[in-house]
Amino acid sequence: MLICEVIGHVWATKKQEGMEGFKLMVVREVETNTHRGDTFVAADTVGAGIGEHVLVVDGSTARRALGGDDFVVDCAIVGIIDSIELKRENNPKLHI
Amino acid sequence: MLICEVIGHVWATKKQEGMEGFKLMVVREVETNTHRGDTFVAADTVGAGIGEHVLVVDGSTARRALGGDDFVVDCAIVGIIDSIELKRENNPKLHI
Amino acid sequence: MLICEVIGHVWATKKQEGMEGFKLMVVREVETNTHRGDTFVAADTVGAGIGEHVLVVDGSTARRALGGDDFVVDCAIVGIIDSIELKRENNPKLHI
Amino acid sequence: MLICEVIGHVWATKKQEGMEGFKLMVVREVETNTHRGDTFVAADTVGAGIGEHVLVVDGSTARRALGGDDFVVDCAIVGIIDSIELKRENNPKLHI
Amino acid sequence: MLICEVIGHVWATKKQEGMEGFKLMVVREVETNTHRGDTFVAADTVGAGIGEHVLVVDGSTARRALGGDDFVVDCAIVGIIDSIELKRENNPKLHI
Repeated sequence: MLICEVIGHVWATKKQEGMEGFKLMVVREVETNTHRGDTFVAADTVGAGIGEHVLVVDGSTARRALGGDDFVVDCAIVGIIDSIELKRENNPKLHI
Repeated sequence: MLICEVIGHVWATKKQEGMEGFKLMVVREVETNTHRGDTFVAADTVGAGIGEHVLVVDGSTARRALGGDDFVVDCAIVGIIDSIELKRENNPKLHI
Repeated sequence: MLICEVIGHVWATKKQEGMEGFKLMVVREVETNTHRGDTFVAADTVGAGIGEHVLVVDGSTARRALGGDDFVVDCAIVGIIDSIELKRENNPKLHI
Repeated sequence: MLICEVIGHVWATKKQEGMEGFKLMVVREVETNTHRGDTFVAADTVGAGIGEHVLVVDGSTARRALGGDDFVVDCAIVGIIDSIELKRENNPKLHI
Repeated sequence: MLICEVIGHVWATKKQEGMEGFKLMVVREVETNTHRGDTFVAADTVGAGIGEHVLVVDGSTARRALGGDDFVVDCAIVGIIDSIELKRENNPKLHI
């Protein structure tokens, strides 16, 4: 799972039926000192809000998160992060 | 899903049967301040035009978007983006 | 699908049975102004030749392109590109 | 499989049912001289502890590692590394 | 498939049952002038030795290479490369 921040919403009127009924959020991978985060769109399944840090799955796992294998969504928010505890010594600089 | 811009068309006369009947579009991931967008080819399923911003899925999800698991296409346009609303404070600089 | 150029051949005598009978080509993703192309090996299914630009699929889609889900090949050439038409104004500099 | 170091824990109270019961660890790919390691979240299946080097699988393989195809987890720790032996001459500089 | 060099071994005593019986090799993608190779761990299925160049598959294809869909391995060596022939003019500088 990726650690992402919810940074916005996307609206798409003209879309496939298999995308109907999902709230589409813009999420951005949290930046670390070794990786600059990508930005993409995920269907929300847990009621995540703007500014929250979330766990995001992709591919066939995202379809299962939405409740069926026929959805045409390949990215989903599956959890809202309460806290992250990182070991001190190597200071990974997770920018949360 | 990736946020892409439709930037062109591809023609391929000699191709697998499982690719017949789809309009093949060149799409480019929208560039952000942390990621330079890749360029690839997606089958259109929603009537997207050049210059429009679209939602793109890949892998097995793309095959489902095309209506069957036996197509040999691994990337599909599944929605046309009307608008994107991003939270102000961290200014993600999504170049749309 | 990725837009690649066929740049060579690979020979492998000692290999899994599920790889027998395919012509293995070295393909390289076409470089754009935002992405430097990766190089990998794809099984040819359409008679592509050295120097041609082709459409390449990967993962489970590649196995379907080869005609069965049990092949141990995860990358396949599925079409030969005749031409690419890109919109003028943003000049994506696709190096073909 | 990726070679990762376990660097922390994640807590998420609000999450999908298919994520319940797994210990969620923050893992970071080991950095080499050609690749800067990404950071992500994996479900632990082998009792890995902070600071240990582990083998991590993703996608549909991760679901199998968890014991069922319906889990909504796409990344799992499947082994704890005892030792790595690298050939001397090209000095890959695996930073373990 | 990726073109990799076998550069070492990994030992992991504590691991999932679905990983038992496979020789785990450290492989590194061959570096080209446009891509710096990643390093990861693949299960050997063809008797590859240190220093050999091999073809590597990942994801669900790797499980098939191992002989069953329930293995928890997502990367496998499926062929040993005898030779690579690249076209002269664009000098891809494949560092083999």
